[in-house]
Amino acid sequence: MAETSDRLAAQMRFLTELDKLKSVGRQTWLLDGSRLENDAEHSWHVATMAVVLGEYAAEPEVDMARVLRMLLVHDLVEIDAGDTYLYDEDAMADKADREGAAADRIFALLPGEQGRELRALWEEYEAGETPEARFATSLDRLQPLLHNVLTEGRAWRHHGIHADQVLERVCTIADGSPALWAYAQSLIEHAVERGYLLPPRERD
Amino acid sequence: MAETSDRLAAQMRFLTELDKLKSVGRQTWLLDGSRLENDAEHSWHVATMAVVLGEYAAEPEVDMARVLRMLLVHDLVEIDAGDTYLYDEDAMADKADREGAAADRIFALLPGEQGRELRALWEEYEAGETPEARFATSLDRLQPLLHNVLTEGRAWRHHGIHADQVLERVCTIADGSPALWAYAQSLIEHAVERGYLLPPRERD
Repeated sequence: MAETSDRLAAQMRFLTELDKLKSVGRQTWLLDGSRLENDAEHSWHVATMAVVLGEYAAEPEVDMARVLRMLLVHDLVEIDAGDTYLYDEDAMADKADREGAAADRIFALLPGEQGRELRALWEEYEAGETPEARFATSLDRLQPLLHNVLTEGRAWRHHGIHADQVLERVCTIADGSPALWAYAQSLIEHAVERGYLLPPRERD
Repeated sequence: MAETSDRLAAQMRFLTELDKLKSVGRQTWLLDGSRLENDAEHSWHVATMAVVLGEYAAEPEVDMARVLRMLLVHDLVEIDAGDTYLYDEDAMADKADREGAAADRIFALLPGEQGRELRALWEEYEAGETPEARFATSLDRLQPLLHNVLTEGRAWRHHGIHADQVLERVCTIADGSPALWAYAQSLIEHAVERGYLLPPRERD
């Protein structure tokens, strides 16, 4: 029987651990309304969106292979930290701490330099300062927005979300893709007109 | 309100249709035994395996970005054709016809040249003749094998599968990655020893 190297054994332990992402629930309904989606499905969907929508990236020199790798691993920390609903302000407050601790554990399952490399890719995504991270974030925000509109605002209505809250959270789409931001704005207008989303609240 | 171009509208219709892949069930159990996985989860898992295991590709010049794109779309035809269990010989017989018809419908949702490009990528995967297609196929075969072994052969035992059937279906791992084939063989030996998989049948 062939010996499995320590390196491959560590990589397979990491890939085995990743199966748990299929059990991390999100606040996004499948379009047929049958159930909420999970993080693995979301990660596949946004990565496939990158394959199709790459032409709309703000910067033409964006490295699409890097965007794909980033989107495939962008939610791995949620295996430990759980999905933080974008409109849950209490949970958003300690999200960075919870996710940092998760990254310490999960990426350390990999061989040293490979774990550091993938962790750096996740940190790049979180920082949102490179063209790749900005475009990846655009898709991460656009996908649940699309699902909300196509399910008549089911998750928004359940949580009582207002248009100004959505705009505040998804306006980063503009940084990664002006074209997709125009599209996202049209979705939000449509959602308010149809009552899927509550109107913007007045500011103090 | 911004006008959405016909091109972007077609791309979004395609990406909306893809949501159905999350409801296409497979014969692979999640590692916690809670349920069977679906095609979207599988597609994410094998693409992420490519990110981690790229160093084991048979050919060093393999284009990993192409492998990732291929794995993200490799099961889209199953939205119409369903997942064909590798050991269901009747269903395997007309798999190509069912999947070809599905490809005709699904890729045609995209703008012309983009639909043709992604369909060609899927056909390249199915043909298994390029280094990228061979490596992608290795991962597509390895992932359910790993899940079967780690769930004590749950799907194999349910379907009464013998080791020779598994070897016949997964031996293509060798073409894409000799190192992962050695690992796969060690998994199969382990599975037979533990009784997760029935011993090889005698040949006529």
